[in-house]
Amino acid sequence: MKVALKLYNSLTRQKEDFTPVVEGRVGLYVCGPTVYSDVHLGNCRTFISFDLIYRYLLYLGYKVRYVRNVTDVGHLEGDVDTHDAEDKISKKARLEQLEPMEIAQKYTNGFHEMMHLFNVLPPSIEPRATGHIPEQIEMVEQIIANGFGYEANGSVYFDVPAFIEKYKNYGQLSGRVVDDLLQETRDLKNQSEKRHPADFAIWMKASDEHIMKWNSPWSVGFPGWHLECSAMSTKYLGERFDIHGGGNDLKFPHHENEIAQNIGACGNTPANYWLHTNMLLLNGKKMSKSDGNNITPVELITGNSPHVSKGYSPMTVRFFTLQSHYSSQLDLTDEALAAAEKGFRRLMEGNKALQSFVGSKDGNKPLDAEIDALINGSFSEMADDFNAPKALAKLFELVTIINKLNDKHLSFDDVSNDCIERLKNCFSDFIFKIFGLSDESTNDGGGVVDGLMQLILDIRSDARTNKDWTTSDKIRNALSSLKIVVKDNKEGSSWVKE
Amino acid sequence: MKVALKLYNSLTRQKEDFTPVVEGRVGLYVCGPTVYSDVHLGNCRTFISFDLIYRYLLYLGYKVRYVRNVTDVGHLEGDVDTHDAEDKISKKARLEQLEPMEIAQKYTNGFHEMMHLFNVLPPSIEPRATGHIPEQIEMVEQIIANGFGYEANGSVYFDVPAFIEKYKNYGQLSGRVVDDLLQETRDLKNQSEKRHPADFAIWMKASDEHIMKWNSPWSVGFPGWHLECSAMSTKYLGERFDIHGGGNDLKFPHHENEIAQNIGACGNTPANYWLHTNMLLLNGKKMSKSDGNNITPVELITGNSPHVSKGYSPMTVRFFTLQSHYSSQLDLTDEALAAAEKGFRRLMEGNKALQSFVGSKDGNKPLDAEIDALINGSFSEMADDFNAPKALAKLFELVTIINKLNDKHLSFDDVSNDCIERLKNCFSDFIFKIFGLSDESTNDGGGVVDGLMQLILDIRSDARTNKDWTTSDKIRNALSSLKIVVKDNKEGSSWVKE
Repeated sequence: MKVALKLYNSLTRQKEDFTPVVEGRVGLYVCGPTVYSDVHLGNCRTFISFDLIYRYLLYLGYKVRYVRNVTDVGHLEGDVDTHDAEDKISKKARLEQLEPMEIAQKYTNGFHEMMHLFNVLPPSIEPRATGHIPEQIEMVEQIIANGFGYEANGSVYFDVPAFIEKYKNYGQLSGRVVDDLLQETRDLKNQSEKRHPADFAIWMKASDEHIMKWNSPWSVGFPGWHLECSAMSTKYLGERFDIHGGGNDLKFPHHENEIAQNIGACGNTPANYWLHTNMLLLNGKKMSKSDGNNITPVELITGNSPHVSKGYSPMTVRFFTLQSHYSSQLDLTDEALAAAEKGFRRLMEGNKALQSFVGSKDGNKPLDAEIDALINGSFSEMADDFNAPKALAKLFELVTIINKLNDKHLSFDDVSNDCIERLKNCFSDFIFKIFGLSDESTNDGGGVVDGLMQLILDIRSDARTNKDWTTSDKIRNALSSLKIVVKDNKEGSSWVKE
Repeated sequence: MKVALKLYNSLTRQKEDFTPVVEGRVGLYVCGPTVYSDVHLGNCRTFISFDLIYRYLLYLGYKVRYVRNVTDVGHLEGDVDTHDAEDKISKKARLEQLEPMEIAQKYTNGFHEMMHLFNVLPPSIEPRATGHIPEQIEMVEQIIANGFGYEANGSVYFDVPAFIEKYKNYGQLSGRVVDDLLQETRDLKNQSEKRHPADFAIWMKASDEHIMKWNSPWSVGFPGWHLECSAMSTKYLGERFDIHGGGNDLKFPHHENEIAQNIGACGNTPANYWLHTNMLLLNGKKMSKSDGNNITPVELITGNSPHVSKGYSPMTVRFFTLQSHYSSQLDLTDEALAAAEKGFRRLMEGNKALQSFVGSKDGNKPLDAEIDALINGSFSEMADDFNAPKALAKLFELVTIINKLNDKHLSFDDVSNDCIERLKNCFSDFIFKIFGLSDESTNDGGGVVDGLMQLILDIRSDARTNKDWTTSDKIRNALSSLKIVVKDNKEGSSWVKE
C-alpha cells in the first residue's frame, strides 16, 4: 500500500496519482463480453490486461469490488437505433434455432472456460444486462425527468444537444468536437424519431418479431446498449467510483454515451479514472474475419491456423500479452509467440532454480543492493500505470543473476540469505500472483507428472552411469515424443514441457 | 429414441410413460442452489442425479432445454413471511461485509467449480432470481387479477383458501390434506397481514435495512421465494412443459406453492412430470452441522474429515451416487465409498481392456446373445425411471465377461467382432456419456501421464528381464508413493491411479 500508484486517465489524457474514493477500497468496472459468439482474441487481451490490473490492486492490499458485466441484450447489429436493427443475440438465436438465453448461456459458459484457461480471476460481480431491466428503466425515467431524454413513438432517445447545452464536456473522453457533432447532417432515414443525428436510443420499442422484450412505461421493448453499463455500475459501485475500463474501441460511442447517461441521470461522471486497452494486431494488421487475417483463441492454442506454426499454451499467450503495455498495440506473430514461449520457460525455470537457493547467513553482501534495486524497480514499474513489460524486464535481469548463481558464475557467498528470501517471495509473488502465470508443466493436480519425471530422470542418470544406452535412448525417445525437454547442468537435470 | 421411457411422477404417485409436449423435445426445470454458502453434499447428489437424467435424455436423441436456476434473493431464514425474516443472502453479506451480489457471485462460482469437478454438464439456461424481477411482478399481477392474491400493507399474499375453492388439488404433490391446512390455527403473531395461516407471500415489502429490493406496484420490496421458479420456468419453458425436478425436501411448501402460483396465474400445472431426489445420509443419519454428522464436498475429496479414512476422488463420489436410485435414500459411509472406489476402478479397467479387443470375424457366435442381452438390459433399466444402479449391475456382468475374455477363460473365437464392436460403443457410451464418469487416471490434458507410465512400465519390464532389481525396486517405491498401482497379467502390465 506504500507504493504511490499512477495511472493514465483517458478522460484527462494524463498520468495521475491514484486516489480512491474510499481509502483502501477500489471500485472497478470493466465492460465485459457480448455473448453472441465465441470470445475474440482481442477481447481476451483486454480481459487479461484488466486481470493484471485487478491482481496488482489486490496485491497492493486494496479491497477491490470488480464488476465485469455480460451483455446479453441490446447490442444491435447493422443500422443501430432503428427498429430494423437486430439484436445480436436474437439474430444468433434464430440462426441456431435456440431461445436467446440459451445462446447467451452457451457463450457465457464458453467465455468463462476461456478466461479460466488464461488464468483470469472471476470478477466480484458479473451482472447480466437482462438481469437489470428495472434498474435501466429507472435510469431512463431519471434522464427524462432531468430533461435529457424524450420519448418518440415508444422509444426513448438521449437528447445530446440538450445535454451539451448544460454540460459542455460531451466528447471529452473520445475527443469528438461538440460543434462537429451538432452540425452533423447525417441522413436521418429510418431514424426520423430522433431529433438530432447525435441523439441515441436509451429505450427501444420492439417490433413484433423481436424476442427479447420487456414492459416499460413507453413500450414493450428493450434497453439501449449503452444503458446497461450506466445502470449496473451505479447499482454495484455507486454513482461515483474509481476506475472504469474497456477496450479502446468502446470509447465512442459506448463510453462517451455512458458518461452522458450517468451525468444525465445523477449529475456525476461515473468513474474518476478511465483506462483503455489497445488493439491486438495479427501480423501487423487489424484482425478481420472477412479477409482471413484472423485467429481465434482455440486456434491459437491448438495451432489449427495458417498463422501459427504450432499451438501455443494459454500461459505462453498470457506471457506474450504481458510483454507489451496494455495501452500499446500488440502485434501477434508466430515469431513473437515462439519468443514468448522461450521467455516464459526461462522465467519459470529461473524461479524453480531460485526456490532452492540458500544465501550466506551473515548480514549485507555485495550482490544484495543490486538484487534489491531490481526487485524494487519491478514494483515501481507496476506502480507506473501497470507497466508489466518494464517490470518483466527487471525480472529477467534477476533471472540472469539467478542463472549465474546457479551456474556458479556468481557466488552464494556474495548474497545474504535475507536478500535471497526476499527475492524468492517477491519473484514468485510477481509471476504467480501479479502476472497470473501458472506452471503448466505440473498442472495435473496431484503432481503426478513431477513425481514420474523425477523417477525417470533418476533412472536416466543410473543408465548413463552404467553406460546402459538402450535405456537412455528409450527415455530420450519417449520424452521427445511427449515434448519434454531435459536439461543437464552441474547440479543435476531439470526438465520442462514444451 | 426407440426406447419407451417410463418415469415415476411424484404428482400422480405412479410410474408413467413419458410423452413430451412437443415430440422430440424436452423442457426440464430443476430447482438450483441458493447461493449464500458452499453447496451441500446432499445438493450435489441432487444435481448429479438430474445430470444423469439430462445426459440420458440427450443420449436418447431428445433436444433438451434444461433450465436450472440460481436463487440469489428471496430465500428467507427464520420466521418466513414476516418482515423480521432475513434474506439468506443479505444476512451472509452483512456477516462477510460484502454487497449481497458479491456473496451470490462468490458462491455461484464455487458451485460451478464443484459441478465441474463432478462432471455435471451446465444447464442450457441458468437464470438468476434477481435477473427476473419484472417477470415475477407480472406474475403477481396476474395472480391478483385472477383472484388468488391480495395486497396487505405493501406485501402480496397468495390466497390459499380462494385457490382451494376453485382448484381442489392444492396439496396433491405433497400429500397435505386440504382440510387440515384450512383448519390450521397456527399463531399469526407477526403475520397479521395474512388472512389465513396457509397463505404465503408472493411479494414482500422490504424494511429499510433490507438491501436487496426493487420497485413494484405494491411497495419497494422483493419477490417471495417460491415465485422465481414459477416465473422463470414459464419464461423459458412455457406455461406447460415436461419435467420439473428438485430435492424431496422442496415438495412442500416450495413445489406445492409453485404449482398453485402457476395455476393461479395461467390456469396450468406447469410440468407434466415431477421428479424428486431423495436424501443423502451420513452413517445412517440425516446430515446436520450442529451435531457434527456432516461432511462437505471438499472434505470428502480431500479426506479432511473424521467421517472418512481418506479422500475420495470426485469420480468415485459420482460413481457412488450411481449405485442407488435417485428416489432412494443413499447412505454415505467410509466403507461404501471404499467399495465404490474399487467398483469404479473395475469398471474403468474393464472398459480399457475391452477397447483393445478384436472378436472373431464370422457371423453369430455362442457368446453374442448373452452380451447383447446384457447391453439391451442396461438400456432397459435406464428407460425404467433412470435406474442407474440396475443398469450398472448389468455393466458389471459385462465386466465379468470382459475379464474372462482378457484372461482367456473365455475365447474370442466365441464372440463375433460385430458384437464386440457394439459392446465397445455401448459400454463407453454408458460410462462416459450417460453416467458422466471420466477417467481420472489420465485427465492431465495431453496424456503426459499415460505416456510417462508407458515408458516406466517398459523400463520396468526390461529391468525384470535383466534381473536389475535396483531399478525395479526404485520404480516400485516411486509409483507406490504416487499411489499408482501396477497390475501384471499374461498380456502385459496395466496401471491405475488410486
